[in-house]
Amino acid sequence: MSAAPPSVHIIGTGLIGTSLGIALSRKGYRVTLDDASPTARHLAADLGAGRVADDGDPLDPEVVVVATPPDVVAATVAAVLRRWPRSVVTDVASVKGAIRAELLGRAAFAELTGNDPLPLDRYVGSHPMAGRERSGALAARGELFEGRAWVVIPTELSDPEVIESVATLGRTVGGVVTVMQVEDHDRAVATVSHAPQVVASLLAARLVTLPDHELGLAGQGLRDTVRIAASDPRLWTQILQGNAAAVRDVLREVSEDLAAVLGALDAMAGPASGRGDGALGVIGHAIEAGNLGHARLPGKHGSAPTAYAVIGVLVPDTPGSLGRLLTEMGEIGVNLEDLHLEHGLGQPVGLAEVSVLPASADRLRSELAGRGWRVLD
Amino acid sequence: MSAAPPSVHIIGTGLIGTSLGIALSRKGYRVTLDDASPTARHLAADLGAGRVADDGDPLDPEVVVVATPPDVVAATVAAVLRRWPRSVVTDVASVKGAIRAELLGRAAFAELTGNDPLPLDRYVGSHPMAGRERSGALAARGELFEGRAWVVIPTELSDPEVIESVATLGRTVGGVVTVMQVEDHDRAVATVSHAPQVVASLLAARLVTLPDHELGLAGQGLRDTVRIAASDPRLWTQILQGNAAAVRDVLREVSEDLAAVLGALDAMAGPASGRGDGALGVIGHAIEAGNLGHARLPGKHGSAPTAYAVIGVLVPDTPGSLGRLLTEMGEIGVNLEDLHLEHGLGQPVGLAEVSVLPASADRLRSELAGRGWRVLD
Repeated sequence: MSAAPPSVHIIGTGLIGTSLGIALSRKGYRVTLDDASPTARHLAADLGAGRVADDGDPLDPEVVVVATPPDVVAATVAAVLRRWPRSVVTDVASVKGAIRAELLGRAAFAELTGNDPLPLDRYVGSHPMAGRERSGALAARGELFEGRAWVVIPTELSDPEVIESVATLGRTVGGVVTVMQVEDHDRAVATVSHAPQVVASLLAARLVTLPDHELGLAGQGLRDTVRIAASDPRLWTQILQGNAAAVRDVLREVSEDLAAVLGALDAMAGPASGRGDGALGVIGHAIEAGNLGHARLPGKHGSAPTAYAVIGVLVPDTPGSLGRLLTEMGEIGVNLEDLHLEHGLGQPVGLAEVSVLPASADRLRSELAGRGWRVLD
Repeated sequence: MSAAPPSVHIIGTGLIGTSLGIALSRKGYRVTLDDASPTARHLAADLGAGRVADDGDPLDPEVVVVATPPDVVAATVAAVLRRWPRSVVTDVASVKGAIRAELLGRAAFAELTGNDPLPLDRYVGSHPMAGRERSGALAARGELFEGRAWVVIPTELSDPEVIESVATLGRTVGGVVTVMQVEDHDRAVATVSHAPQVVASLLAARLVTLPDHELGLAGQGLRDTVRIAASDPRLWTQILQGNAAAVRDVLREVSEDLAAVLGALDAMAGPASGRGDGALGVIGHAIEAGNLGHARLPGKHGSAPTAYAVIGVLVPDTPGSLGRLLTEMGEIGVNLEDLHLEHGLGQPVGLAEVSVLPASADRLRSELAGRGWRVLD
């Protein structure tokens, strides 16, 4: 790279593009911005994401980041590769197989028809695992990528130096870079993100017609299970379309298991009460398989899952109470690994479940009780 | 009731029975305990849940609470109704239709055969909405019911005074009592608790075979969606068996919607790319319906859902940091409505998302920034 600060051109100034612009500008990068919407690109500039590129700008960016909606990524990447013959090009879409397929198709078409070749050696995909339930530039923030996985996804044509440039970009904004093959990436996100989104949405849809007083029985379990059902339908329609085959494969397995459970429930609901015909086993195995899968989830900081000790403490529902609890935990010298709050119905007290390393649990329990907290056994 | 403290006999000393014994004992009730396991009943007594009833004990309890596993509740209720001819009898199982059906069947059989009648006027079901992911007496606590819904579920034969006695019991331990019909209750818990359990378990089961490095892409969304997949298979098998018809009806709707989504994904994954044939609409509507259902979830304290303002604050991952933040929020005079923690991969900083009433958000943001916190826009 030259002695001048690196130059990055960002196309698409939604949540990810604007956040990236803010983060890179803070690091001294020269960032230029483009978006199909003049309002959106000027808003991003106002938020500190960089400078709006004018039509006549003689840009020669070292890196171009395509942060458009998923369904126009491939066309935009192709146009960019031809427009700037030296730039490294990446995109930040959460699906990769469909984009690669479209790019390879365009490259083959160019070769067949004698058009300008499509130099795919300069393209490497990215997927920063840093979405939010909110979208748009106004939700952007420079810290969005800090400590999050930034997956780098080369194609078979990607140049090794280009891969390294894109990895450097991810590390620059605080991402933890990991390189994956397209198929592995798409299968992984189908399982850990896309299929869960569909399932949470379908489950939440059952609440639409439930009478108010029955909804009142909803507890924290339901709330957690359907939290992501609040996500943006337009964005998710594109994501699911872009990863349709992999999501279908995961959801087909869910559907087959669900059919088995439905059969067992049918047998149980029938006149024979479903005892002794294998129905109980089907249900029990389904719940057990869920235990096994849940236990594989990585713990904090990407480490292997740790079994934290969970301590329940009653906290008055007034300003500062929870803060006082956590301050005193700090004074006691015990680090909070996780925190879960539960609110009751119409009660002036909440339950804080604090997770700590098992070795600290007994000391924390007795010291908190000694300071007057109501600690649950 | 007599001038002596009320007497309650609890049969089954697991999580709910033991917690109830602790709570009632603290209120001065005379609590006796029974359990099929001598170890379990003595453990509950050691935990302060009451006194173990000896075989020769001349008990005459005002209220008997059946807190056994769901599949023996009806038989136990029937035996208790005959053994103590003046006692009010309730149970705490999370399913009610199957228990009522078995009790009505036993009553009809007794009438037909000229056996001792089954006085179902003295029975009213209860369902304290207070489960935990952990089970057993060691997880018990006297505050378990505080602020939680305690649903009272009469049968068509229940005496109004008996209904009131059971409601009083629920209020005594801090529950928020609501009376529901059996069918409404079972449909409600199928929708807000039992079907979500099955769906979360089936989704988590997909993680069993995912390679380690792909699991590393899992984020907070997946974690929340599958949290309840850690629940006890034995207990859940009985719960799902006991509410099989209602759970089946909810899951059948999920299955039908899932089939529609699978069809759309199939069309999208096929050679025609699934554009313009309605597939996008199917996906979009599924996600939108989830938005609508999610928006109906009641807010804190059982009130209508409130759209809280969410403010992101970066917090060093060291003891006391989060406590200092929340203490300062208290000093600023803003009440914390909800708190969500996110941990990055291998980074010494976490993100706290604090939910506050929208009217307080701007002031909190500027005061925190003024105190040196890194507040995200």
